[in-house]
Amino acid sequence: MNDSQPTSNVALSTYAISDAQRWFEYPIHVYPHHTDYGGVVWHGTYIAWMEEARVKCLRSIGIDYADLVAMGCELPVVEFSTRYHRAMKMGVTAIVKTRMSRSNNVRLDWDYQIVSEDGSELYLTGRVTLVPIDRAKGKIMRRLPQPIADVIDRLAS
Amino acid sequence: MNDSQPTSNVALSTYAISDAQRWFEYPIHVYPHHTDYGGVVWHGTYIAWMEEARVKCLRSIGIDYADLVAMGCELPVVEFSTRYHRAMKMGVTAIVKTRMSRSNNVRLDWDYQIVSEDGSELYLTGRVTLVPIDRAKGKIMRRLPQPIADVIDRLAS
Amino acid sequence: MNDSQPTSNVALSTYAISDAQRWFEYPIHVYPHHTDYGGVVWHGTYIAWMEEARVKCLRSIGIDYADLVAMGCELPVVEFSTRYHRAMKMGVTAIVKTRMSRSNNVRLDWDYQIVSEDGSELYLTGRVTLVPIDRAKGKIMRRLPQPIADVIDRLAS
Amino acid sequence: MNDSQPTSNVALSTYAISDAQRWFEYPIHVYPHHTDYGGVVWHGTYIAWMEEARVKCLRSIGIDYADLVAMGCELPVVEFSTRYHRAMKMGVTAIVKTRMSRSNNVRLDWDYQIVSEDGSELYLTGRVTLVPIDRAKGKIMRRLPQPIADVIDRLAS
Repeated sequence: MNDSQPTSNVALSTYAISDAQRWFEYPIHVYPHHTDYGGVVWHGTYIAWMEEARVKCLRSIGIDYADLVAMGCELPVVEFSTRYHRAMKMGVTAIVKTRMSRSNNVRLDWDYQIVSEDGSELYLTGRVTLVPIDRAKGKIMRRLPQPIADVIDRLAS
Repeated sequence: MNDSQPTSNVALSTYAISDAQRWFEYPIHVYPHHTDYGGVVWHGTYIAWMEEARVKCLRSIGIDYADLVAMGCELPVVEFSTRYHRAMKMGVTAIVKTRMSRSNNVRLDWDYQIVSEDGSELYLTGRVTLVPIDRAKGKIMRRLPQPIADVIDRLAS
Repeated sequence: MNDSQPTSNVALSTYAISDAQRWFEYPIHVYPHHTDYGGVVWHGTYIAWMEEARVKCLRSIGIDYADLVAMGCELPVVEFSTRYHRAMKMGVTAIVKTRMSRSNNVRLDWDYQIVSEDGSELYLTGRVTLVPIDRAKGKIMRRLPQPIADVIDRLAS
Repeated sequence: MNDSQPTSNVALSTYAISDAQRWFEYPIHVYPHHTDYGGVVWHGTYIAWMEEARVKCLRSIGIDYADLVAMGCELPVVEFSTRYHRAMKMGVTAIVKTRMSRSNNVRLDWDYQIVSEDGSELYLTGRVTLVPIDRAKGKIMRRLPQPIADVIDRLAS
């Protein structure tokens, strides 16, 4: 996991104030199908929300994931890790915060925080790593397609 | 299934024009996790969207489903039926339309249409029936709790 | 829904005795991720189990669904209906029973019962209708490919 | 992630030979609902299979998870990490291998490998950490309930 991520609410708030503009925010709501017998969100549910936030973030900078796939490029997940800080109850609305960085030429690292609407509670922190795959060849691309690299550089900067 | 539901696009449009105000509308977007190997929405995905639209519709008239459960009343599904008219592709945005009626003292029938954003394409029609259950007793309530019955009458009228 | 399906346990047992050989049986177990806040199986979970039973039933008569898809034929669901008779709790093991019939040249109707291991409790009855689609053309096939029709006739007879 | 886990097939085979008895094995099969538009298993699907293997492993040593919950003890996931080595295609059968260790008094670490039936291909490695929670108090238990601690010691040894 990502040791540099804030793990206390105090740290979180400080962090949010100074870097708010760098996170993309995606609102979520807990419906019955997201919960398990415990009355809280099942731990696997978050992985779908994190994907949704990622696709929406790409869209916000002009990359339509469905177009990317149609162009022959996919971005499968190669690593995934989360820490669950607090359970989310049914009916709650929260925010998935995410931001991307490139760890080398092709790997895309997405950091995550899921927080309450007012930012006072931290539910989850996590990181997801994607690599671009050439669909036809089934192989990792050595470099991102140029138009994509451009917007990603813009996003990551 | 519901024979009175429109099955052609022409009928659908006509219908939408005359009754638009009676449907609650809930927007959805197809993310990768909603699809299957065919590149389109897996047929079981819709059932989650239909639940979300229902919870959101109740909320729009002042009923918070999580509060209802906390008060000891649940609304489990007792019947579910759908007809799949057209496949939805990844990246598509669409509208879940739903409206409720009471078929007798306690059964709540929810009719559904899932249509494209411009209303020109019909993806799915369906009906879901709920009954109120007393959580403590595990039995069907003979009548809806009064405050709930009031708003539901308002919604259904 | 299917009016001819037994709705009482007495009828179910009688039926099971006389026709046991005609149903394919697929065992299931309720894990935490199948449940919702109510401590019982979420109503959408069954749709995945019903698909699994169908794929396994086809496999038992020599049809590998992945091969079918590779050959250019898909069997999407065009109609789905269920009646929920009794909630299934976490930790329970049960049996999905299914059998297929052809309602016309190409439609495949699958009837379902989900029952307790000893057959004394009925959880769900349902019906799922599939039609064969030519993947390349995206159209319903007028007739099933011959090798498939052969085994399906064998299954349905 | 777990640096000590084998990342090449060679290492995996060697490891499997020497320690085979220490892993609990749970077979899985890829059905259509497990896949996404890419024709392979969606990355979130594995989290459900890993839970199933865990529950089944506990059951194999006499701990019924539903009983545990009924007794007031839950084992929520507090950390989850996976590395995706190779995509799994529709129709494939594979093995989830898992084994548990106690990293301190109460944390339970479960290591995972998902491999092909013949053990020659590695799809995923991962680790899931659970802690026991007292349902009534909503707090982490300082120590495992004695009967549970006994069987877990047996499993971990």
